[in-house]
Amino acid sequence: MNKSIILHILGWILNFEAAFMVLPVIVAIIYGEKSGAAFLITIGLCLLFGIPLSLMKPKSRVFYAKEGFISVALGWIILSLFGALPFFISGQIPRLMDAMFEIISGFTTTGSSILNAVEALDYCMLFWRSFSHWIGGMGVLVFILAILPLARGESMHIMRAESPGPSVDKLVPRMRTSAALLYGIYIGMTVLQIILLLVGKMPLFDALTLTFGSAGTGGFAIKSTSIMSYSPYLQSVITIFMLLFGVNFNFYYFILLRKAKDSFKMEEVRWYFIIVISAIILISFNTGGFSGFFDAIHHSAFQVSSIITTTGYATLDFNYWPTFSKTILVLLMFIGACAGSTGGGIKVSRIIVLFKTIGKEMSYLVNRRHVKVIKLSGKKQEVETVRSINVFFITYMIIFATSLLIISLDNCDFTTSFTAVAATLNNVGPGLEVVGPMGNFSNFSDLSKLVMMFNMLVGRLEIFPILLLFSPSTWRK
Amino acid sequence: MNKSIILHILGWILNFEAAFMVLPVIVAIIYGEKSGAAFLITIGLCLLFGIPLSLMKPKSRVFYAKEGFISVALGWIILSLFGALPFFISGQIPRLMDAMFEIISGFTTTGSSILNAVEALDYCMLFWRSFSHWIGGMGVLVFILAILPLARGESMHIMRAESPGPSVDKLVPRMRTSAALLYGIYIGMTVLQIILLLVGKMPLFDALTLTFGSAGTGGFAIKSTSIMSYSPYLQSVITIFMLLFGVNFNFYYFILLRKAKDSFKMEEVRWYFIIVISAIILISFNTGGFSGFFDAIHHSAFQVSSIITTTGYATLDFNYWPTFSKTILVLLMFIGACAGSTGGGIKVSRIIVLFKTIGKEMSYLVNRRHVKVIKLSGKKQEVETVRSINVFFITYMIIFATSLLIISLDNCDFTTSFTAVAATLNNVGPGLEVVGPMGNFSNFSDLSKLVMMFNMLVGRLEIFPILLLFSPSTWRK
Repeated sequence: MNKSIILHILGWILNFEAAFMVLPVIVAIIYGEKSGAAFLITIGLCLLFGIPLSLMKPKSRVFYAKEGFISVALGWIILSLFGALPFFISGQIPRLMDAMFEIISGFTTTGSSILNAVEALDYCMLFWRSFSHWIGGMGVLVFILAILPLARGESMHIMRAESPGPSVDKLVPRMRTSAALLYGIYIGMTVLQIILLLVGKMPLFDALTLTFGSAGTGGFAIKSTSIMSYSPYLQSVITIFMLLFGVNFNFYYFILLRKAKDSFKMEEVRWYFIIVISAIILISFNTGGFSGFFDAIHHSAFQVSSIITTTGYATLDFNYWPTFSKTILVLLMFIGACAGSTGGGIKVSRIIVLFKTIGKEMSYLVNRRHVKVIKLSGKKQEVETVRSINVFFITYMIIFATSLLIISLDNCDFTTSFTAVAATLNNVGPGLEVVGPMGNFSNFSDLSKLVMMFNMLVGRLEIFPILLLFSPSTWRK
Repeated sequence: MNKSIILHILGWILNFEAAFMVLPVIVAIIYGEKSGAAFLITIGLCLLFGIPLSLMKPKSRVFYAKEGFISVALGWIILSLFGALPFFISGQIPRLMDAMFEIISGFTTTGSSILNAVEALDYCMLFWRSFSHWIGGMGVLVFILAILPLARGESMHIMRAESPGPSVDKLVPRMRTSAALLYGIYIGMTVLQIILLLVGKMPLFDALTLTFGSAGTGGFAIKSTSIMSYSPYLQSVITIFMLLFGVNFNFYYFILLRKAKDSFKMEEVRWYFIIVISAIILISFNTGGFSGFFDAIHHSAFQVSSIITTTGYATLDFNYWPTFSKTILVLLMFIGACAGSTGGGIKVSRIIVLFKTIGKEMSYLVNRRHVKVIKLSGKKQEVETVRSINVFFITYMIIFATSLLIISLDNCDFTTSFTAVAATLNNVGPGLEVVGPMGNFSNFSDLSKLVMMFNMLVGRLEIFPILLLFSPSTWRK
């Protein structure tokens, strides 16, 4: 393990975190909030560790997959540890465990909150909370890499570890240009959403924070009733942008490169929209009796987009929906958005491959000489890829079951425990019952909160970077 | 597809079913029950179709995996169709859909019931219900094959399709002797359990039916309170025999062949007992406050043994247990018993392989040149075997999710829907809430009941025979 280069990278992460915190300081100045001092103190602490570490020249440039995984896992943990400090130092979230939960939920773009009344927070704190979604959504390490003078091997391993979707690899060769273009899209869409919200007369602060939450598919709101109190126009704008941020970014990338044909060949994007539309229709029929059909479509579209993209905003308390609609939402949590988007969950492309694996097995059972090839968007998938997707799914389910068991010690009802794990592991935010869209995670024990923090990181980094951190073989010479 | 040989086999299945029904007729005569006539009518119908079909000489002896899967799937469906008739004809279960549900639950050794008051049934009906567990438990087709004059290839493909656990293959070469020995063990243990129950002063009828239910890991009881009203001695005997019937039968087979060393090398059996003991201890501590520790161990041991072996008897209503204990039970439902036992679920050996697959993936991610070999009981597992276990798990979960979605249309609470699917797919019997051990499945819609019948068959036949029945490629020339 090349520890010196990992420390070097961690140093840079802290420097960047200090830079990110300048924004909430500005917010504090505008609103005249004393709690802004907590950000200044944290900036000092970040630089205190960050500058010396980043200045130390790594002894060796050896950088393999292992170093990539560990940099990413530790990077996200360090980011969260320091990111939690402003909440804690200012006393706005008095318990460090809760502050950690809140900021991990922020960076991982989950959106589960331990706050009983989010309105009690100062503006600078609300801003930091939402801004962490935006930072987390853009894959902060890849972002830093695109700017840092690192060798190609290093960048590639970190990029693979942080966003291991099957579609990233092809972008790697010209990584810096690709990254610039992808971030251009991300920032462009963010700005567009802010403008459209302002047009609908949303206050600037709300427009900024809610856009950060949709761009990162996070879901922290600045009101206890989430998005319920905004106008149907504003709710619709958010619906559309949540959906757009859940699309594989290569879709936009190809369009910008004038390869629209490649875009529309993307099987994942097609299935993503088929699932979204089917879910909206089914839920609209199932809930239509409540408030008229047009209203049912409006709310169904919002909730479906929010949950499949793993954002987590809500325009109503879907705890009161019939079980069928709730079950659809729970399944959407697991499906998640497209790979290469800012969303969480298992990802549509993996689900497609899992289904095709079953088809392959069935034809194999009937005729052992006939071996089907698994294709995605018309391209043959390597046996390696398919196998790693299968193992991903198995590991996901085993982590899910183990977490469920530990969290059930808190003796909440089964549905609450089940959806609390589903909501954190898939980076969604709200679940059902106690952790429903109008509820929160404050009542869980510290043990459960630790498990859920682990789950949020595991979900965001797609399992293995975090798991390898705990494997003795990673640390062996 | 060689249809003539499949029809030939189906004919034999009907003849055997007619023979099995002689026993409930005798019970009806002893208790002077008129409903016994329903069995005579059904016997007539079975033979009406069975004799001509079994006498028809198959045009060709071609028999491949495909024919094996289809014989097994259709065999179980035919068995259930005719097996449901006595309930329906006698009017003891007035709806055919319910009668089908009940007998599929019987043959698949599930034990989920649609009866509100099981005591209302006649003795001959109760007997047939429990006897179907015993028939289903022994793998009725393999049994018939051991007796029928079929070629080796045919037997092998049917055996593989009906009990596809990784441990069966080695028994295939000397199949008829192996089968005789395995059935000897099955019958011997059945007789022993009956004797031990009679010693504890259990009435003969109860001893017979409850033993059929434990031997087949079925779980139909003859009282609405399941096993609650019996003495602690009788409950303990049942606990022990449920556990023993959940062990891989190769364990006993090796011991009888004086290869005890091979028995104790079986990793699956070791893990099975580790899981059982851990679960008993955890639940005892978690529920100890209710009724004193010794009592807690007694009931915990009974419920754990009942659920992990997917039997489904109960000595109390575990709906009132804390969530942690209930979650353990739900996880045990999925784990299930050992492969090569009469139990259902995913099976301990598959779970072991799934865990080892994760270990392999992690070491592969860190060092791509280092490829770990997956071993079970010290023996290298073929890549093929591991892959098919992975695909099994994926298919299992996708069927689970789809079933959950359909059943949730009935608008039961999420926990009821979730555990109803878990209880039927894993062939357990009871779930939680409405379908808890003192509840039943009568309130579900016909659509949900159909889905659960499908699940019970899918669970018992380990997915693929039933799935292939619905695949167009199976029926293509």
